[in-house]
Amino acid sequence: MCTAITLKTKDFYFGRTLDNDFSYGEEIVITPRGFIEFRSLNGVKNRFAIIGTAYVKDNYPLYYDAVNEKGLCMAGLNFVGNARYNAVKADKPNVAQFEFVSYILGVCTCVGEAVKELKKINLTNESYCEGLPPAELHWIIADRESAVTVEFVSGGLKIYKNRVGVLTNNPPFDEQVFNLNNYMRLSASEINNTFSRKLRLKSYSRGMGALGLPGDLSSQSRFVRAAFFSLNSVSGDSEEESVNRFFHILGTVAQPRGACKVGKNGYEITVYSSCCNANKGIYYYTSYGNHRISAVDMRRYNLAADKLFRTPIKGGEDVLFIN
Amino acid sequence: MCTAITLKTKDFYFGRTLDNDFSYGEEIVITPRGFIEFRSLNGVKNRFAIIGTAYVKDNYPLYYDAVNEKGLCMAGLNFVGNARYNAVKADKPNVAQFEFVSYILGVCTCVGEAVKELKKINLTNESYCEGLPPAELHWIIADRESAVTVEFVSGGLKIYKNRVGVLTNNPPFDEQVFNLNNYMRLSASEINNTFSRKLRLKSYSRGMGALGLPGDLSSQSRFVRAAFFSLNSVSGDSEEESVNRFFHILGTVAQPRGACKVGKNGYEITVYSSCCNANKGIYYYTSYGNHRISAVDMRRYNLAADKLFRTPIKGGEDVLFIN
Amino acid sequence: MCTAITLKTKDFYFGRTLDNDFSYGEEIVITPRGFIEFRSLNGVKNRFAIIGTAYVKDNYPLYYDAVNEKGLCMAGLNFVGNARYNAVKADKPNVAQFEFVSYILGVCTCVGEAVKELKKINLTNESYCEGLPPAELHWIIADRESAVTVEFVSGGLKIYKNRVGVLTNNPPFDEQVFNLNNYMRLSASEINNTFSRKLRLKSYSRGMGALGLPGDLSSQSRFVRAAFFSLNSVSGDSEEESVNRFFHILGTVAQPRGACKVGKNGYEITVYSSCCNANKGIYYYTSYGNHRISAVDMRRYNLAADKLFRTPIKGGEDVLFIN
Amino acid sequence: MCTAITLKTKDFYFGRTLDNDFSYGEEIVITPRGFIEFRSLNGVKNRFAIIGTAYVKDNYPLYYDAVNEKGLCMAGLNFVGNARYNAVKADKPNVAQFEFVSYILGVCTCVGEAVKELKKINLTNESYCEGLPPAELHWIIADRESAVTVEFVSGGLKIYKNRVGVLTNNPPFDEQVFNLNNYMRLSASEINNTFSRKLRLKSYSRGMGALGLPGDLSSQSRFVRAAFFSLNSVSGDSEEESVNRFFHILGTVAQPRGACKVGKNGYEITVYSSCCNANKGIYYYTSYGNHRISAVDMRRYNLAADKLFRTPIKGGEDVLFIN
Repeated sequence: MCTAITLKTKDFYFGRTLDNDFSYGEEIVITPRGFIEFRSLNGVKNRFAIIGTAYVKDNYPLYYDAVNEKGLCMAGLNFVGNARYNAVKADKPNVAQFEFVSYILGVCTCVGEAVKELKKINLTNESYCEGLPPAELHWIIADRESAVTVEFVSGGLKIYKNRVGVLTNNPPFDEQVFNLNNYMRLSASEINNTFSRKLRLKSYSRGMGALGLPGDLSSQSRFVRAAFFSLNSVSGDSEEESVNRFFHILGTVAQPRGACKVGKNGYEITVYSSCCNANKGIYYYTSYGNHRISAVDMRRYNLAADKLFRTPIKGGEDVLFIN
Repeated sequence: MCTAITLKTKDFYFGRTLDNDFSYGEEIVITPRGFIEFRSLNGVKNRFAIIGTAYVKDNYPLYYDAVNEKGLCMAGLNFVGNARYNAVKADKPNVAQFEFVSYILGVCTCVGEAVKELKKINLTNESYCEGLPPAELHWIIADRESAVTVEFVSGGLKIYKNRVGVLTNNPPFDEQVFNLNNYMRLSASEINNTFSRKLRLKSYSRGMGALGLPGDLSSQSRFVRAAFFSLNSVSGDSEEESVNRFFHILGTVAQPRGACKVGKNGYEITVYSSCCNANKGIYYYTSYGNHRISAVDMRRYNLAADKLFRTPIKGGEDVLFIN
Repeated sequence: MCTAITLKTKDFYFGRTLDNDFSYGEEIVITPRGFIEFRSLNGVKNRFAIIGTAYVKDNYPLYYDAVNEKGLCMAGLNFVGNARYNAVKADKPNVAQFEFVSYILGVCTCVGEAVKELKKINLTNESYCEGLPPAELHWIIADRESAVTVEFVSGGLKIYKNRVGVLTNNPPFDEQVFNLNNYMRLSASEINNTFSRKLRLKSYSRGMGALGLPGDLSSQSRFVRAAFFSLNSVSGDSEEESVNRFFHILGTVAQPRGACKVGKNGYEITVYSSCCNANKGIYYYTSYGNHRISAVDMRRYNLAADKLFRTPIKGGEDVLFIN
Repeated sequence: MCTAITLKTKDFYFGRTLDNDFSYGEEIVITPRGFIEFRSLNGVKNRFAIIGTAYVKDNYPLYYDAVNEKGLCMAGLNFVGNARYNAVKADKPNVAQFEFVSYILGVCTCVGEAVKELKKINLTNESYCEGLPPAELHWIIADRESAVTVEFVSGGLKIYKNRVGVLTNNPPFDEQVFNLNNYMRLSASEINNTFSRKLRLKSYSRGMGALGLPGDLSSQSRFVRAAFFSLNSVSGDSEEESVNRFFHILGTVAQPRGACKVGKNGYEITVYSSCCNANKGIYYYTSYGNHRISAVDMRRYNLAADKLFRTPIKGGEDVLFIN
């Protein structure tokens, strides 16, 4: 599954872990302006350039998470069993699920515009091609000022204000947020004995204020953990400190190989972790195989080019030998 | 506080996180043979060269965790409130707490020898110098074949077989191991409903088999978490895969800044994480400020030299810009 | 707050705990046929006699939980913050919240009929009288064959099949049921080590299969606990064994005075616990002050009488001195 | 397994649950003065009369829990795997495990005397008779002023001050008490959000201050639960209120049939629950089959008689029919 988080220091940062038991061969992809023509929208193209992680199929970027040149951010995360898309409707602007991220980031400059757009369009269950059925997802859309969670469920479109700045997977977002109430007593601070005045209980370790925080890899537990570590994290506001902090938060929900078996021989792992500076269009990432942070800078590419910029996710451990 | 783990693939790996709210200015230090003369042992010196992290005071390495050229490994971890050292005894080989790691690694080739040595020596509460009182620690000593936990407590010396391959802090090791029984039902695999046959309960997320695993930063919770992720982790047995896996396990107990407040303005963080290939004498590490793995290779240094090899822990985020 | 449960052995049993920090002076009340005339229904009266616990105001029974002579059962439980009742509508059969239990039990013989009735009526927010505003409740309606949970929320009427046979309070019922998935790994049986084959973990106590079951008094924890103990409970099917078992299950969610402070000097306690044999119309109960089970038998009263049968809940500890 | 608790109001109360999957046919038994002659003590007899629950074998009371006429209380609880008794030693006052309760209560008037006695005697592993090997137990000894836990383990006799006033089973008592530190943050009061100031978290139910309290039936969970409910409980100090409160606390650790399977067809249940007023010598109890409290009063029996007073534990549900 996956975890997305947001962070505001001097700039705004947006990113996620992608957890899976296999990889489609994701790449970091910059889509220049006007490169994508949306399938059912009669010539509408992306006005804004986009950077993010995508699986590129036949020169077409299927984005997992991305940011546009206006600083609008969006990521799709698994929402299996709850996502419901529509059939194509003749009288509606139809946007296929596979082009949803590209569409919103291609035509909107902020969360407010995205929300208006969401209410107009008809999100359809069209496949990109045979063998690639629409993924069951929900989305976080964020800019520097606010974030929303977007879910298409049996009850229709749900748009939730996302004050936590976190998205994982099941259950639906409102239940994830409600569940945080069960952890309101947790604290990053040192704690006192409120169990009973008749006993002399004590902290035998630092960090006991968060006893009760779940440590497993299920989606509800990752939501609580990402919320706790994200909302309590601190750092300076420089680019280096912000990016460093972002990856430390994502580290608290990362999945090591072996702890989550899938089927007989598979293991879910954190395939990659990303952190995009939405103001500057710099996309930082690490992969399971490489702890070092790599970065791709959208501004160094010609955003009016007529082809994609593509670079594979680096996989080998890039160790620095000191001596 | 801290967490130490071990890993055996083709080679044997040993390392730890060091969590604290400040730093003494630790360095990676190689101590050549014969460099250290033990204070009360009439000319006994370290026969074996040592690599590890140390605070170097007046050209003397005070090791936190280290490995010798024979592949014997040792790390000291906080054990506040429980550690009890002795006064100097005239009729015993006195080893001061501050030279304990250097002594064991300086004269022993394996855990078996270390255990014999432990029973002979008198571990004293002598300070290295004024202002540096002996730290309250317990230790893990490990080689490729086995590991022990060593505690000096009010009841005297305790040596525990350490089958988990993990050490954190309080409570005493036997209680940490006993506490794992409370988690015996957790699993890395997919799970079935045993709550009641009358209900159709289901996995709504991958990873639900470990629900109940603690996610906070206290020493008992880190012990359980490190045990679970360590014992269930998998990888190939190459050097790169092993080191990668080791740091992924340590990542599950790492402490981001902000989640563990100390006093008014302090925060405990994972100052550094280490992984030493005990067979090859290569010491890998990351620091809080730098996700990239650095490495120092003992074999590339003249182990018969007459001075320490010292290199500071690298702190800045070493980002690789792709474009 | 409160917990309601159901039990089917040879007969069908229905009951609840009522938890509060004060009491209105509840009584066990039998309402004979035709005694209640519903406020806005032009002469419609209760066709069926009813037994249950009620607060009697001006000779009118305001039922908390009750059973009718056909074996249909209903209880209202706190649902603060979520309950939404309607204004009176001229074109609808208006049933006030305070007469809801009496109405459903007064005119329906089974859950199926009750569900049909629910879809017809307009549940209104009319007060019984000044100073008695409508309580914020949701309900469980049950007969021998099935049970439903009924909630009037901002999204309108929700009727949920209740396969668990349990109702507590917040959050809404569908979320309570979803939350049980988090406990699917719990078991009443002895358990094996699935944490790691590399360790010899063991059961040091009986009952470790349910480690993780919540023990506090919050509504979500009581739901899980009541579900676990109810669905795993066993007994013979005689009247005595069934009633005995029912009160043992309710005991697992009972609230001792002191464990749940309310305001400065208040404490929520289990004011009473009830168990009604729905087939026989025998209403058993205990109170906080009296562990002995008392019983009132509807069939021993003239159900065509023109007045209520009322008996106060017995409060004093009725100890049997043997010698 | 079992749970013992203590309570001081105007008088001192002591009692326990006895959990098992079968019964020896326990009885409430008053042993008059001088009735028991201790096996290896050359004519030493019990100076004080005793009341409690015992299995009577050949007219000899094997006490589970009891109180003497001086108000000294003692109960034995399962301690399987940890209890170690001695062989008979010629030069020591040998007390067999089966006569341990009778001996201490037979010759001591308070905890202080009991502790002195404990240090003198040799507790032996002699069987009462063939087929009745010594049970693996540890004990709580209490009077109005203090309580101790007594364990005979591989390291010898351990006497712990018991400030919690609770005893269950494994692990050893000091570890049970240490484990309470993990729950120091729990509270009987209403709680505030300390998770994050950035979120508006709320109590959606009363009782959320104790979220994290374990609800299962294992011995460590029962210890925490009994401690929390016992130490936070409140009542008036009359006999009725005190006894009522005592059984409410015991109710939080009672075992309903079905929740704890033993072997193929067995279930551990709370066979009986007891509460003795140590000042007055009145022994109150309930059984699994009977919620009503029964009582036996030691003072109404001739404590100088030459035979046991015996009354079987009442098992049938003693329902009071009101109409």
